[in-house]
Amino acid sequence: MASTSSAAKPKAIDLSHHLNELSRSRVPSPLKDIIKYMKEPGMISLAGGLPHPDLFPFAEITATSYVPDVDLRSTSGEDIHSTLNFSIPKNVSPSHQNTLSAALQYGTSYGSANLSSFIREFTSRVMNPAYSDFEILLDSGNTDAWNKVVNILCEFGDYILVEEHTYPSSQAVWAPMKCIGVPISIDKNGLIPESLHDTLKNWNNTHPGVKRPHLLYTVPVGHNPTGSTLSLERKKKIYEICVEYDIIICEDDPYYFLQFPPYTLRPSSSETQKTAENPVAFDRQAYIESLVPTFISLDVQGRVIRLDTFSKTLGPGNRLGYFVCNPLFAERILRATEVTTQSPSGLSQALVEGLLTSWGQDGYLRWLSGLRDSYTSRRNWMCEIMAETFDLLPSPQNITDDVVAVQKGHASTKDTFPYFSFSFPKGGMFLWIKLYLAHNATYQDLKTTSSSGAVATAKWAEAFWMDLIKEKVLLVPGSYYTPIVGNNERMIQDSDVVFFRVAFSYETKEEMKIGIERMAVVIQRWWNGEASA
Amino acid sequence: MASTSSAAKPKAIDLSHHLNELSRSRVPSPLKDIIKYMKEPGMISLAGGLPHPDLFPFAEITATSYVPDVDLRSTSGEDIHSTLNFSIPKNVSPSHQNTLSAALQYGTSYGSANLSSFIREFTSRVMNPAYSDFEILLDSGNTDAWNKVVNILCEFGDYILVEEHTYPSSQAVWAPMKCIGVPISIDKNGLIPESLHDTLKNWNNTHPGVKRPHLLYTVPVGHNPTGSTLSLERKKKIYEICVEYDIIICEDDPYYFLQFPPYTLRPSSSETQKTAENPVAFDRQAYIESLVPTFISLDVQGRVIRLDTFSKTLGPGNRLGYFVCNPLFAERILRATEVTTQSPSGLSQALVEGLLTSWGQDGYLRWLSGLRDSYTSRRNWMCEIMAETFDLLPSPQNITDDVVAVQKGHASTKDTFPYFSFSFPKGGMFLWIKLYLAHNATYQDLKTTSSSGAVATAKWAEAFWMDLIKEKVLLVPGSYYTPIVGNNERMIQDSDVVFFRVAFSYETKEEMKIGIERMAVVIQRWWNGEASA
Repeated sequence: MASTSSAAKPKAIDLSHHLNELSRSRVPSPLKDIIKYMKEPGMISLAGGLPHPDLFPFAEITATSYVPDVDLRSTSGEDIHSTLNFSIPKNVSPSHQNTLSAALQYGTSYGSANLSSFIREFTSRVMNPAYSDFEILLDSGNTDAWNKVVNILCEFGDYILVEEHTYPSSQAVWAPMKCIGVPISIDKNGLIPESLHDTLKNWNNTHPGVKRPHLLYTVPVGHNPTGSTLSLERKKKIYEICVEYDIIICEDDPYYFLQFPPYTLRPSSSETQKTAENPVAFDRQAYIESLVPTFISLDVQGRVIRLDTFSKTLGPGNRLGYFVCNPLFAERILRATEVTTQSPSGLSQALVEGLLTSWGQDGYLRWLSGLRDSYTSRRNWMCEIMAETFDLLPSPQNITDDVVAVQKGHASTKDTFPYFSFSFPKGGMFLWIKLYLAHNATYQDLKTTSSSGAVATAKWAEAFWMDLIKEKVLLVPGSYYTPIVGNNERMIQDSDVVFFRVAFSYETKEEMKIGIERMAVVIQRWWNGEASA
Repeated sequence: MASTSSAAKPKAIDLSHHLNELSRSRVPSPLKDIIKYMKEPGMISLAGGLPHPDLFPFAEITATSYVPDVDLRSTSGEDIHSTLNFSIPKNVSPSHQNTLSAALQYGTSYGSANLSSFIREFTSRVMNPAYSDFEILLDSGNTDAWNKVVNILCEFGDYILVEEHTYPSSQAVWAPMKCIGVPISIDKNGLIPESLHDTLKNWNNTHPGVKRPHLLYTVPVGHNPTGSTLSLERKKKIYEICVEYDIIICEDDPYYFLQFPPYTLRPSSSETQKTAENPVAFDRQAYIESLVPTFISLDVQGRVIRLDTFSKTLGPGNRLGYFVCNPLFAERILRATEVTTQSPSGLSQALVEGLLTSWGQDGYLRWLSGLRDSYTSRRNWMCEIMAETFDLLPSPQNITDDVVAVQKGHASTKDTFPYFSFSFPKGGMFLWIKLYLAHNATYQDLKTTSSSGAVATAKWAEAFWMDLIKEKVLLVPGSYYTPIVGNNERMIQDSDVVFFRVAFSYETKEEMKIGIERMAVVIQRWWNGEASA
């Protein structure tokens, strides 16, 4: 997607009425003026409490990095490297900063100007925001960023729109503020626009006298935990609804660059998988076009706060990410940053900046494309292992997932029943499995002794999970992702079904296989009546 | 100070009534369990969304650092280095973490266990906390840390005890929460216990029906901005008052290790300065004993939250510091950290941990002692330059500062008057000058046209500061440090006096001299009637 001239684009509209009282009350630090004057040529600064760089303990830092077109899946160990080198010369005027002395010194809350400028160009080229005056603001990763969003937009007790399975840490930010999640339905193709629209349209009837939500939190690509990815068409519908009901969209998008080609169950030829295993020459344009456009690319008003991060692309330990948002929100977040995190680690910024600068814009895209191929392989491994361990059948009509898993060798048996269903993720790191308990005897027993179906389901899920752990395979229980609907209480889930999140990001292929086989052993045990809750 | 057995020490008392509603409402993240099980031997983790380390872009990072006994003031360039080297081998099970793969991966919110344990030993040896169950919790520097303290302890509208000149960024955290600063008097020896006691004793009379403050924010060593350092005797008195009135002390102590021997004005021999210029062999015990004990060393109850940071000792860009506090507060701060900053940068942690481990406990103390010597020299430079640029005289009785500065060559003139006074700092990075406007004609003119003396003072200070900037020397106006006493309004300051903060941490000696000479030029202009506001 070519960057179009920003002159033709509208500016962000005034959305200041979304700011909370805390954020409106925040005044700029008087020290801002100091920083401005410190930069004047010839100025002798006896102002800031900054150490002279001669007093820093590191003289030199060298980082060896991969070139962007390294094959990350290679096991040869014959990797090609490029090297970044930063050092501090002694006895130089402290105002003559270089990369390392700047990295070890106090930085501005905007973050490094060079890194910001790289990101701005990258965002323009790849995301092409639909309004002209978007800002880039560095942060310490998306958890930090979402906390800052809540702290400028939400009042205590606000209702917040969330997916019906949603990231627990994102809830843990607002739950102590007595905020309340409003679950919106989600399927394998992400958030369902009609569910969002119904919720907002009926708000005054369902919640008379209660302030309508004004913030939507969503993970649009490789959704955590369900692995679903929103289509462009749905994104357009959701954006329109958010314009109609004056909703701010917080697009938490760590998996954006990990969008995969579709996975085909037992393809006649193994072509799909082959493409990923043997990447052809890099086509920048094809890669960009393979990515579903972001909410920010549709955002003619500036009502999207995009949270981007290097956590999934260059390592979570950097604690480095960035906001793309309108100037008003960026300024308010900046004011809050000055008195909280101040800035991301200077070392993280310097290393990431050095890496990106040495790779260049196209190099970074090449790296991301290679990473996408790696995660595509990992998604394929997991799906293949599932197909080797269970018989996978196309779902019957009452199940919206791609496939159901039945006992191995029972695919053609008439009396077979599905253990679980799942969809082949088109992005991210997770596969979301849904276990069906209708034919599970232990569950049926529990139901007769429990106060409700939901209680029986929760008990069953806990005992099953503990048995998985005993068998040395760790999944995340789906209940962790249930929206909090007030007083730290979670929404009551459907009975008869239990979810688990299965990550394919971390373990090797061999370990994944062992893990899924262990899961199969536990499933057998629980469906054969050998286990009890 | 030898570490005494912690068995003989009391445990922290229950201070849970100090927690605010937000903090009490925070529940642990369910993901905690996941982390616990991930660490079990033999576990296959399909749980966390952690990237496999093969997908990190850095293969190796090398840092060259100074040895701890390097002479930081040497200009020879003949420095001795030691080298840290971290690399990630390819194709290793992701559970076999090494330093670099751990640095680039998600870390726990406690921070690195090795680094924490180094700090715990260091704190026990050097600070010797007076209660046994203190905790160490890493953070992203003292600004982040103070924000977290306010966010667990303060309700909207709380009154907070602060020094009468106080760090603006610390106020900017609570000001939007409509909190109100309660200024406590300070002199060249720090916070005045009697002023604190009077404020608390008279609270119900001065503020009928208003909740008494329960939090004191203080910078006890090398105070920002006044440069004062609290004596042990005053610390003891303040601690006792805080026990009596159930006050939590937040000890923000970035300059703790930068405590200097006294500076003597025009010493008969130049011995004092010589000691610093030619350090003798390092005596660990003597260095530790030269430091005024911290509040935490007196803290038998666990009511001190100590904010320690590597910003002034290993570089602010690391964004790395730590809390020393009671287990209850540490746990609540940890819960907040999990959903905000998550953890400090893994790269910063790895480099600092590598450095400290290679140096060892005594090595780190040696480094700090060397740093203290460097800042002692810098303090001496600034004081000497002041003495070269002005005539410095012992203060008359009505001025509590160490010296007054008069026009050069006028020391013996009868009709001389002081431009300003200051005290020789015994720690930190700042010299705090107090200008006397009684003999300033411009100020007298302003007084006749202004609505009040305070307005005239503010106008004069602003115009004088702009003239300093025009002359290319940057100081920080003292008004920046005035407590906010409600509605973002600052306390009204005395008229006829104006403060400026002068840092000696950053510029070279030559630049300092030029800077102070430029200041002298501006002072001359303003007292000769050549300037106007």
